[in-house]
Amino acid sequence: MAAESGKQRLMTVTAQTPTNIAVIKYWGKRDEDLILPINDSISVTLDPDHLCTTTSVAVSPAFTHDRMWLNGKEVSLSGGRFQNCLRELRSRANDVEDEEKGVKIAKEDWEKLHVHIVSYNNFPTAAGLASSAAGLACLVFSLAKLMNVKEDHSKLSAIARQGSGSACRSLYGGFVKWIMGKEENGNDSIAVQLADEKHWDDLVIIIAVVSSRQKETSSTSGMRDTVETSELIKHRAKEVVPKRIIQMEEAIANRDFSAFAHLACADSNQFHAVCLDTLPPIFYMNDTSHRIISSVERWNRHEGTPQVAYTFDAGPNAVLISRNRNAAVLMLQRLLFYFPPQPDTDLNSYVIGDKTIMKDAGIHEMKDVEALAPPPEISDNNSVQRNRGDVSYFICTRPGRGPVVLTDESRSLINPETGLPK
Amino acid sequence: MAAESGKQRLMTVTAQTPTNIAVIKYWGKRDEDLILPINDSISVTLDPDHLCTTTSVAVSPAFTHDRMWLNGKEVSLSGGRFQNCLRELRSRANDVEDEEKGVKIAKEDWEKLHVHIVSYNNFPTAAGLASSAAGLACLVFSLAKLMNVKEDHSKLSAIARQGSGSACRSLYGGFVKWIMGKEENGNDSIAVQLADEKHWDDLVIIIAVVSSRQKETSSTSGMRDTVETSELIKHRAKEVVPKRIIQMEEAIANRDFSAFAHLACADSNQFHAVCLDTLPPIFYMNDTSHRIISSVERWNRHEGTPQVAYTFDAGPNAVLISRNRNAAVLMLQRLLFYFPPQPDTDLNSYVIGDKTIMKDAGIHEMKDVEALAPPPEISDNNSVQRNRGDVSYFICTRPGRGPVVLTDESRSLINPETGLPK
Repeated sequence: MAAESGKQRLMTVTAQTPTNIAVIKYWGKRDEDLILPINDSISVTLDPDHLCTTTSVAVSPAFTHDRMWLNGKEVSLSGGRFQNCLRELRSRANDVEDEEKGVKIAKEDWEKLHVHIVSYNNFPTAAGLASSAAGLACLVFSLAKLMNVKEDHSKLSAIARQGSGSACRSLYGGFVKWIMGKEENGNDSIAVQLADEKHWDDLVIIIAVVSSRQKETSSTSGMRDTVETSELIKHRAKEVVPKRIIQMEEAIANRDFSAFAHLACADSNQFHAVCLDTLPPIFYMNDTSHRIISSVERWNRHEGTPQVAYTFDAGPNAVLISRNRNAAVLMLQRLLFYFPPQPDTDLNSYVIGDKTIMKDAGIHEMKDVEALAPPPEISDNNSVQRNRGDVSYFICTRPGRGPVVLTDESRSLINPETGLPK
Repeated sequence: MAAESGKQRLMTVTAQTPTNIAVIKYWGKRDEDLILPINDSISVTLDPDHLCTTTSVAVSPAFTHDRMWLNGKEVSLSGGRFQNCLRELRSRANDVEDEEKGVKIAKEDWEKLHVHIVSYNNFPTAAGLASSAAGLACLVFSLAKLMNVKEDHSKLSAIARQGSGSACRSLYGGFVKWIMGKEENGNDSIAVQLADEKHWDDLVIIIAVVSSRQKETSSTSGMRDTVETSELIKHRAKEVVPKRIIQMEEAIANRDFSAFAHLACADSNQFHAVCLDTLPPIFYMNDTSHRIISSVERWNRHEGTPQVAYTFDAGPNAVLISRNRNAAVLMLQRLLFYFPPQPDTDLNSYVIGDKTIMKDAGIHEMKDVEALAPPPEISDNNSVQRNRGDVSYFICTRPGRGPVVLTDESRSLINPETGLPK
């Protein structure tokens, strides 16, 4: 690495990467080290305006080892998964030259140089919102830019996959398929974009972040236990999912919401069924999750055609995908009716993200929530329960774009003088 | 029907029949009318001292139509399932003569004579404790005695099956297998006894009756929906259950509690998994059920070998089968620690059935419950939760005997003068 004397010898790249929600689920690995799945999966990328990771990466000859900070706290990079990603990226690095800064790094220098990585989620951590998917995707994407890695997004997805399986699907916006692949080295286990976010921009997504008293099983150990002990998972992976993948691709291509909702709900339920078929059984959904499903099923049945699809990852949070904006408004009214906030809650922090949905629902202050009438699909108003406090908050969002580089240097998370977090 | 003038012209039989809990589950019919299942199942009969149905049946030329009273309330016999049982029994009736009462009924008279049926459960109704199994079994058993039906218990089980599937398993004590059969008419879909209750009398059973806010799906409609919509149920019925039936028969024959517990827990979980794989999904277990499972799994893991097996039917109640009395005592202590009663509860009505288990657990009054220490398998005592009020009550019981005729006329539920409930 050469630089003119007296000049800044640090190079940085800042990128933003979305999170994603699977609508045909990934559960179970055929290779634990390379993170190769036992079936294809399909996801919707969520709008990074509401849920994303921002990562700045920097390289400098002054750095003595690779370091990473996540949400303001230094974390270890010694894990095999981080190391796999870093090794794969370094082996594909190329010459880099920044004439303005007078920095030049030769391809072979990357093996000796160290990087600093500073990452930040724009959504609360520990909310079970797949932050590792966005995080690993962003780490790989930003380092690839820094190191002038020339592989396309699909090749990068195979690197991100080795950090966190579902991270590979965060390399694209819109609707994404993770092809399980057949090769032993995993080179063909990559993500591809089925359609971008503009292809089906009617969809509106509401996430219910559900309060939980239970400690959750990590998805890594959970899916290992399922593969080892469930009698049903093999049947799911071999017989059920391949058909659903074809049907879901068709539903997305045709913007067929009824088929999309049917498949997404059935596949979420089947994923949780194989968790229950695990020894010991894994419970990710709780009574609140069940109540949300029941309220959606009741409304969809009442309407005759699906208005909303639900899907749950490895936790109790519901991701509710509405067929259009009007359905989302009606869904939010139902959610706020069934799950009003505690009296001392600031409504502004109870529904976050795209707040225009809340305004269209006629909800401006707490008294509007209290005044909500029971939905018409409830036949017996006497048995209606309002489960106050069972949801922590709601996020209103939509399908969104893939990773982008943020060129505005003011958005960098790294102090250009020190190479440390700002 | 002939009787000497002036004498009582009413004949009665009173019988007592146990309920049962499946340890390899029945879920799904291949014939809705005949109630023919898609797989074999195995159950443990519960001690009728704690859970049973008592039924008195009477016949008299004075009766103008068939009538039935359940728990003090007249119920309709017009349903197809009752009618199927009554028709099957009448067609197998024989001559009856009671010399003492001077009553004589010819075989062919049964088609014209009417019966009264009075039935009573010794456990709270609406507790989700399979009262229909005991009830239908008792109806068939007592009418068969009254009508001098000569078929053995297996043949009677095929009749009871047509009233309520799992009722067929209540015709025997101990450990019972319901063979699914192959014939279209269902004649070979019968229950057989694998072993009587004395074969394995170490086992102690604690039932946790769980408080529920949810309205439950009936098992009849639930299993129909599962068969129609679940992608996993066929695999379960064809590939998984047949192996488990063989293994469970071996476990029972060898009194191998580890194998028994492993199979019972796995099969309960898989039954609930296929319920979850149904469209719309069926949730029978709730957060309290999940907590009970977690507490059992944690303790079993801590001990190294299973102390307790759990199994859940179509509701949130846990049936906990302990390997021996000592394990049951330790289990009850754990249950009362995690699920203490509300402060105003009478402890005597919070733990019912065999109360000697509670005494052995050192629980004599409420302060003993409050003083219970966290179980040693809990590593972090700060995170321990006592979920007060989440369980309605506990029933301590054991495997028990099959149906018996009660010869003591004072136990008859029918007034011999009026032919109506006492």
